[in-house]
Amino acid sequence: MRFTFPLMATGLEVAMIVLFATFVQYETDQNLSQKPNSTSVDLDTSGDLYLFFRDVHIMVFAGFGFLMTFLRKYGFSSVGINFLIAALGLQWGTIVQGILHMHGKKFHIGIKNMINADFSTTTVLISFGAVLGKTSPSQMLIMTILEIAAFAGNEYLVGKIFLASDIGASMTIHAFGAYFGLAVAGVLYRSGLRRRHPKEESVYHSDLFAMIGTLFLWIFWPSFNSAIATPGDTQSRAIVNTYFSLAACVVTAYACSSLLEQNGKLNIVHIQNATLAGGVAMGTCADMKIPPYFSLILGSIAGIISVLGFKFLTPFFTTKLRIHDTCGVHNLHGLPGVIGGLASIVAIAMEIPTMSTAMQAAALGSSIGIAIVGGLITGLILKIPIWGQPSDENCYEDSVYWEVPKRIEHDSLFPEHRSHNQLEPEA
Amino acid sequence: MRFTFPLMATGLEVAMIVLFATFVQYETDQNLSQKPNSTSVDLDTSGDLYLFFRDVHIMVFAGFGFLMTFLRKYGFSSVGINFLIAALGLQWGTIVQGILHMHGKKFHIGIKNMINADFSTTTVLISFGAVLGKTSPSQMLIMTILEIAAFAGNEYLVGKIFLASDIGASMTIHAFGAYFGLAVAGVLYRSGLRRRHPKEESVYHSDLFAMIGTLFLWIFWPSFNSAIATPGDTQSRAIVNTYFSLAACVVTAYACSSLLEQNGKLNIVHIQNATLAGGVAMGTCADMKIPPYFSLILGSIAGIISVLGFKFLTPFFTTKLRIHDTCGVHNLHGLPGVIGGLASIVAIAMEIPTMSTAMQAAALGSSIGIAIVGGLITGLILKIPIWGQPSDENCYEDSVYWEVPKRIEHDSLFPEHRSHNQLEPEA
Amino acid sequence: MRFTFPLMATGLEVAMIVLFATFVQYETDQNLSQKPNSTSVDLDTSGDLYLFFRDVHIMVFAGFGFLMTFLRKYGFSSVGINFLIAALGLQWGTIVQGILHMHGKKFHIGIKNMINADFSTTTVLISFGAVLGKTSPSQMLIMTILEIAAFAGNEYLVGKIFLASDIGASMTIHAFGAYFGLAVAGVLYRSGLRRRHPKEESVYHSDLFAMIGTLFLWIFWPSFNSAIATPGDTQSRAIVNTYFSLAACVVTAYACSSLLEQNGKLNIVHIQNATLAGGVAMGTCADMKIPPYFSLILGSIAGIISVLGFKFLTPFFTTKLRIHDTCGVHNLHGLPGVIGGLASIVAIAMEIPTMSTAMQAAALGSSIGIAIVGGLITGLILKIPIWGQPSDENCYEDSVYWEVPKRIEHDSLFPEHRSHNQLEPEA
Repeated sequence: MRFTFPLMATGLEVAMIVLFATFVQYETDQNLSQKPNSTSVDLDTSGDLYLFFRDVHIMVFAGFGFLMTFLRKYGFSSVGINFLIAALGLQWGTIVQGILHMHGKKFHIGIKNMINADFSTTTVLISFGAVLGKTSPSQMLIMTILEIAAFAGNEYLVGKIFLASDIGASMTIHAFGAYFGLAVAGVLYRSGLRRRHPKEESVYHSDLFAMIGTLFLWIFWPSFNSAIATPGDTQSRAIVNTYFSLAACVVTAYACSSLLEQNGKLNIVHIQNATLAGGVAMGTCADMKIPPYFSLILGSIAGIISVLGFKFLTPFFTTKLRIHDTCGVHNLHGLPGVIGGLASIVAIAMEIPTMSTAMQAAALGSSIGIAIVGGLITGLILKIPIWGQPSDENCYEDSVYWEVPKRIEHDSLFPEHRSHNQLEPEA
Repeated sequence: MRFTFPLMATGLEVAMIVLFATFVQYETDQNLSQKPNSTSVDLDTSGDLYLFFRDVHIMVFAGFGFLMTFLRKYGFSSVGINFLIAALGLQWGTIVQGILHMHGKKFHIGIKNMINADFSTTTVLISFGAVLGKTSPSQMLIMTILEIAAFAGNEYLVGKIFLASDIGASMTIHAFGAYFGLAVAGVLYRSGLRRRHPKEESVYHSDLFAMIGTLFLWIFWPSFNSAIATPGDTQSRAIVNTYFSLAACVVTAYACSSLLEQNGKLNIVHIQNATLAGGVAMGTCADMKIPPYFSLILGSIAGIISVLGFKFLTPFFTTKLRIHDTCGVHNLHGLPGVIGGLASIVAIAMEIPTMSTAMQAAALGSSIGIAIVGGLITGLILKIPIWGQPSDENCYEDSVYWEVPKRIEHDSLFPEHRSHNQLEPEA
Repeated sequence: MRFTFPLMATGLEVAMIVLFATFVQYETDQNLSQKPNSTSVDLDTSGDLYLFFRDVHIMVFAGFGFLMTFLRKYGFSSVGINFLIAALGLQWGTIVQGILHMHGKKFHIGIKNMINADFSTTTVLISFGAVLGKTSPSQMLIMTILEIAAFAGNEYLVGKIFLASDIGASMTIHAFGAYFGLAVAGVLYRSGLRRRHPKEESVYHSDLFAMIGTLFLWIFWPSFNSAIATPGDTQSRAIVNTYFSLAACVVTAYACSSLLEQNGKLNIVHIQNATLAGGVAMGTCADMKIPPYFSLILGSIAGIISVLGFKFLTPFFTTKLRIHDTCGVHNLHGLPGVIGGLASIVAIAMEIPTMSTAMQAAALGSSIGIAIVGGLITGLILKIPIWGQPSDENCYEDSVYWEVPKRIEHDSLFPEHRSHNQLEPEA
């Protein structure tokens, strides 16, 4: 970490500046005035777009960041490395997506690019959850660059070649990010972590910090699924569908958690994660003309599947498949993302003859396939032992990469023992 | 809890799906195009409505959720059961309100229904505050269903029969929720909890988590009071009035807290709650044409009354009236809600000859009356000893209903003692 | 504190009510209808303005409030006195700014005034950071009144006399607030605090609470810099520039923090603060027509300078200049604010011949000059020993001004020792 990380980070930021200088222009008055009759519409749209952007922005930085603070000694890294990945990733995402959709030597950026840039970082944040606590900041810089490139390629394929529909990105973001992360985690698997690590657990207040992340993700998920939808009825439908899917998902996740835990108790891990599966699963179908109760059913199923995944699949993955998924991203993003893709195929087959089920299936296949291949390659690069990966003992431990407060909490909680804290006499 | 809760929750979600399949349609292009010349206006409105919806949504899920995390061992339940109540309640609220206002065999849902659904859950969340720590999740499912039905009935009466004005719902939500909750708490009163329970208290960080709730409620309260106001000047007035009422309320709450506590210290309970009373009290009058300084006076009074309530009324209720109100919802929602209703009568009498003071009084009366009757009936149902209510000893204790982290915080706070946490040798 | 604080707070609130009754009117339908053809535009604008207002509002109350909760025993005061300052300050800011811009005997208030009122409080919250832990609530009431008056005067000078451009207020808010606070801190300097105070430090979870503040400030900073920009392209440019400047700043702040700390570790203080410097530095130029990569460069520089400031300048200020800056506001607001002002001079000289570099320089000079003079005078008034300033020993300690929970956290974290918490037998 001594010099590798600062040099890598500095080098990447310099590269971003050079790429921006080479390729990027603002959407200026001139550009807009070149499109006749469109000025006022564009401005209106951009005002509304900014509303949706901000919601996505909260999800990326506060939502994902705090969701991962559940580990008792890894809060600084969870929220801090999430911050770093997203800040670097949004610059890189702007560049990669801009170049892929460029018609000329430069491309223009505006609010819509900011939404798409934030979206692109989300894939890396999901994958980060799978390797949380077991990797170094330098490794995460590399993963950010590689995964966003792969994501942008797959998104281009799905949207421009297959012409498939994935408005809330169940497939291109959630399934993609989860399977990419699982592939990386599989390559980086170490038998030293097979047994439960003593630091891989929460304390009471770290679980409450994680609930901040859960709630801000949950609250704004309707905006995530509708941000780039066509304004008007289509966008409203995406909002309403996601709102109800999420609500149903909460109820079934609570029911299922209580049913599966000893003595009918609730498990806070399920509540932190599975309650969000309804948003993921609704992603692909959110703007389609489906009957309203379909959203409730889809959300209900997602909540149940996600809890089942946490209970049975994660232990199976760890012990049998040798894939250790710290945050259970497979249960929150992977499975519900696949469900979302499959649901779109069902919905199109039943209700929307103008769309192609084959192209939806191709989109789901390419999202998972490119994610796994990309993740395997990325994992092999991250495995090169020069990136400062933590030793087994130092996993899930902030103090390897962070200055951590030395004073023990305990001391600050005895106001009556103030004498111990008295100001020392001056020298 | 073993099977009661998961079966109840599952059954309720299935019922919601059936009710949605029976009654609910989206606002589709067809519906809108049936209203000539109205399309663009509707779309614009829905864009703005979504802005207000999201603010209310934050208040419901993050605001109310974290406000109740002040108890040192009851944070999972506070934020988690709040989450469950609101997620179930918004589905049920959509149904009940939709059916009450239905013209035909189905009703349409859009963003406005989402705002009203969120509003309906608020009443239950307020009542939840009165019984916090003393009830089971199953009991809260029942209360959600019963209270939202009673709320929707009273709201119909106030809005459609009395034609009274209550834009920010001082009466129909805040006073209603508080008195409903007090009635339930009165019926569920147990003498075993008469003395201060050793777990009914905060620790330092739980009080900071509660401040997250306070601030997000405070910040977005102007949107709560204006969300369903007529766009334009009326809505702006509701925003501005609430903004200033809340600001004045903060200053007087601090002053009053310091005046009443020993040695002029501030009490964090007052700051967490009484600072919000200005938003409650402004609810009914927010959109009326009142002089601006009236908002400051109303907020100032609400802050003072609320602190006085916490200091003198809550102990009196507990010991003399045998009503134990955990969060002091009477001081935050009850009294300020009544003040808000009375203020509207004064404002109408003085400034607005076109409106009826009698109808405002009837609205206040019916809100309190239906709340108390509904709360008493609900309390009697909840008292049936089959809902897994916690024993006296287990009140204010997450571990009855939740898996709680086993490891003690202490251990995680001695980085120098890392040896105790070392990875055990593999078997 | 016994009576000084409640009497001062009450007196100030009464004064606000009197001033509102004397000077303030709402923007009513009548006012709007007096401007022909403008009604719909005004209403639209006010809808968009409210969106920006809410973002600024979150930054003021949740962002600044939680950013300062890093001290282990001073969280109630940090978030609580921030709350009080902002609530009083927004009323006073409305009055002072309204009177300065008044044409007649009354002035009208609407959403735009709320934005400007929130802005005016920001200066005091920045200065509060410099004296955090060393002052009493009564002293902060006085500082609120004096600093907002000085701020409004300087803002009038900059905007109406110099006609300088400072859309995101790098100079008039950030540099002003920082140098005002440093001047106050200099006057209030006490040699008893020269050595590191044992309570002037964080614990693990207090640093995580501070990250809530950091992230909500970071997320909404694009709205801060664009809130009062001309809607349309200019506003969009301000948003986009700030978004990218902040992203670049995060990457360089991480790089620089790691480079300067022992063993390449990251310092959470840098991450909490220096990551925001890109927003401050972008303030003045945000809406100017500058090449996009300029924003990345400006943000990158701000991140580096800010970390360097925390590492080298803050210790120098404390030991040599006898100015103790608790939160390091000089590094987050002071230096980046000056950089922002200088950057605007460079940008205007290079790209915008229609604007005057001399006037920008005058604006920067007057912002710093008036801040220092105002801060020195305020400091002298606060030094009068009647405002209940804490003793050296009681600095950074909530329990001087707050009732603090008596129970130790420790006890609540041994679920297995539940016996100690059992309900005592009833008397």
